[in-house]
Amino acid sequence: MAPSDQIRTGALPAPEMLRQYVDRIERLEEEKQALMADIREVYSEAKGHGLNPKIMRQVIKLRGLDKQDLQELDAEIEVYRSALGMI
Amino acid sequence: MAPSDQIRTGALPAPEMLRQYVDRIERLEEEKQALMADIREVYSEAKGHGLNPKIMRQVIKLRGLDKQDLQELDAEIEVYRSALGMI
Repeated sequence: MAPSDQIRTGALPAPEMLRQYVDRIERLEEEKQALMADIREVYSEAKGHGLNPKIMRQVIKLRGLDKQDLQELDAEIEVYRSALGMI
Repeated sequence: MAPSDQIRTGALPAPEMLRQYVDRIERLEEEKQALMADIREVYSEAKGHGLNPKIMRQVIKLRGLDKQDLQELDAEIEVYRSALGMI
């Protein structure tokens, strides 16, 4: 077998290390999944109280923007909607 | 103004409730962002020890499958790669 055939095909030098990293990541991913379930639950509760989750998601995304960026975005969206006869 | 013009254009019946739901969701989203930063950090540490984060992500996705589903997926991927001259 030529040396180049061996590149990246052998065993890992420290397979135990890989396993430990994967375990850590999977634990964190589980916590993330649990949080995502909590978030869905809050949206679902809000929906039960007559709020619209789709609109909430949209508005929450926008809340990261400062006032000026938000005004610019709103103005730009209006231009595009107007150009497409959507206003 | 015709009644239909008023649909969905008035104030929310309970704006304070909306604010509370949004606060709860934003707190949970912050926790989620923090976890995602932790996960990136672990991948970055693994990379510093010579592991390949792209391959790790790919393999971690597959770990959710049971043995038989994994074998079927592997076989199917091989069929597709073979059909495209990638083996």
